[in-house]
Amino acid sequence: MDRIYVTYSYFGEDPKSIADLIRVEQTIEFPFELAPSWIQDQVVGKIEEITSSDKSSYLITISYNPDVAGGELTQLLNVLWGNASLFPGVRIVDLKPPSSFLDKFKGPRFGVSGLRALFKADSRPLLTTALKPMGSDPATLAEMARTLALAGFDLIKDDHSLANQPWATWKERVTLVARAVAEANEVTGGNTAYAPSLNLPFDQVKDAAYTAKELGAGALLILPGITGFDSLRVLAADDSLALPIQGHPSMLGSFVISKNEGISHGVIFGTLMRLAGADISIFPNIGGRFSFSEEQCLDIAAKSRSELGKLKPSWIAPAGGMTLERIPEMIEMYGKDTALLIGGALSRGNLANNAARMSEMVRAY
Amino acid sequence: MDRIYVTYSYFGEDPKSIADLIRVEQTIEFPFELAPSWIQDQVVGKIEEITSSDKSSYLITISYNPDVAGGELTQLLNVLWGNASLFPGVRIVDLKPPSSFLDKFKGPRFGVSGLRALFKADSRPLLTTALKPMGSDPATLAEMARTLALAGFDLIKDDHSLANQPWATWKERVTLVARAVAEANEVTGGNTAYAPSLNLPFDQVKDAAYTAKELGAGALLILPGITGFDSLRVLAADDSLALPIQGHPSMLGSFVISKNEGISHGVIFGTLMRLAGADISIFPNIGGRFSFSEEQCLDIAAKSRSELGKLKPSWIAPAGGMTLERIPEMIEMYGKDTALLIGGALSRGNLANNAARMSEMVRAY
Repeated sequence: MDRIYVTYSYFGEDPKSIADLIRVEQTIEFPFELAPSWIQDQVVGKIEEITSSDKSSYLITISYNPDVAGGELTQLLNVLWGNASLFPGVRIVDLKPPSSFLDKFKGPRFGVSGLRALFKADSRPLLTTALKPMGSDPATLAEMARTLALAGFDLIKDDHSLANQPWATWKERVTLVARAVAEANEVTGGNTAYAPSLNLPFDQVKDAAYTAKELGAGALLILPGITGFDSLRVLAADDSLALPIQGHPSMLGSFVISKNEGISHGVIFGTLMRLAGADISIFPNIGGRFSFSEEQCLDIAAKSRSELGKLKPSWIAPAGGMTLERIPEMIEMYGKDTALLIGGALSRGNLANNAARMSEMVRAY
Repeated sequence: MDRIYVTYSYFGEDPKSIADLIRVEQTIEFPFELAPSWIQDQVVGKIEEITSSDKSSYLITISYNPDVAGGELTQLLNVLWGNASLFPGVRIVDLKPPSSFLDKFKGPRFGVSGLRALFKADSRPLLTTALKPMGSDPATLAEMARTLALAGFDLIKDDHSLANQPWATWKERVTLVARAVAEANEVTGGNTAYAPSLNLPFDQVKDAAYTAKELGAGALLILPGITGFDSLRVLAADDSLALPIQGHPSMLGSFVISKNEGISHGVIFGTLMRLAGADISIFPNIGGRFSFSEEQCLDIAAKSRSELGKLKPSWIAPAGGMTLERIPEMIEMYGKDTALLIGGALSRGNLANNAARMSEMVRAY
């Protein structure tokens, strides 16, 4: 039988007891001995393996009947990490759903090959950036977007902090920026896409996605740590939208930052972002303002690209304080299926010159 | 000027530098010196205070212009914790929005006094429980609910693991359980409310809330760690629904479990649950299957009840492996404005007898 395999690292004593606790907690949350025997057998998770490389940490693999997740991402998350998120010393380090379960998900609509075709980028990395800073009025942001589009950027996203502030309300900003990018595309004959942020109230997200498309947005930015991974999945799977989606790490840091608890970088920013349908997964690169290690970053890259049922591989966007000087090193580290995301650094000096320089550098690959 | 005050604990060196990093990262995410001076002054957060009780940990208070959050909970979360969630050693320990900002939120619709009136519980704790285990068919769950309602429970929620599984699909379960509870209420003349879980796909949550109400559900269970805090806010604020809401901690453990990172127990399960509109905030009590300390639990209780603009105080539901024997101790610790939540333990032996015993114990207060 096809089962969902979850591997947890565990820092503590008595791994068999914590494994028994997890397999019950994440399914029936009920005294095991009181459950009917068929529920003990078919509904409760099964301990598949417990290994240890030392005497203080263990790897525990538990398999779950896919029926406990009912084919829904919301319940899959609940089974993976609902109450287990409250256990000290427990961290998810790998997730392997069976193909029969993965087949219920569309994953990235475009993925690596789809965005290469869309942006006519046969083999080079993608050129992406963000509109900043918060406080700028819509006309200023639109002129910034025009400059970046004229330089040949593929994707220009809202800074993730742009929402519905008095200095630039969502609709006014999206209207003006989308128009400026469209005008630039007419000049260049290019395909620059503007990705407005959909970090909006729960009952406005879906309508805003449609509005964004009507206004000319060519992509979308989702913050699944705030609006939920399933908001990303629903928008990615919507054939009437059919827009590339960037997933942003806002608030997701709390899942990865503890060494002994949480969910691994690769599973959060690779497996789950991709399962939900992100065409591009943004995460903080080594050597920027944040703290991810090379190993953690490469785990994200691996899980974004390795086989996951029939789901397309997604782009990775290592970001967070990157500069033009680091582009060769980033391509060396991650390869060309990488969306280079440089934000604030482009505004040091002349934006148009910096944008043109980045575009030339990347198009040379 | 009214500002949003956020206090972060910081474990590390050079608190002034991290404070400067946070106040910029959480607003403009842009090189400070390149921002126009009015943006530096009005949009970027301000360091209000840095204190230390030793030389390795600090308390940093930063205030934000409420306009950066634009009056939306999704953006408030982004400002509070979006990229800061990625910083090692940084944890939110207090949040004080100004009254002018809090006035944009309805908070708990019922709160302590509203549920006392609804359940005719003048001064006693509330009697609450959960339908389990996953795998049970709808008729079995409905008979369980009937037994509990006949015993006089106030609230009977779906176990948070119940979603849309083949053993009991959401609609069939809600239909049968709601009917059984209604029939029991006719017998007892009581007001037992059934709270189905709305841990459902993003685009089904709101419709499901309406369907649940039509089918006779008297309350709702939301998992904001999965569907988002704003899903809770939208449903709590909906005057056409007007149902009590229980907020569940699923996946929220990752925000609280690291000592040095994340968001404090009181802010997550107290302030944010209440701001979003939970009438009852469920969290794991001391001495159960989980790991919260007495201090952390009492912080949740305090932040659920202390002044927060005009928002009503919310009930707390300390749970997670509680037993009848612990009821006096829980009331001693938390007071009578507590929703006692005992789940699996009621099924040890005879459910009807255990339920009647709990009901008698609690109604004696």
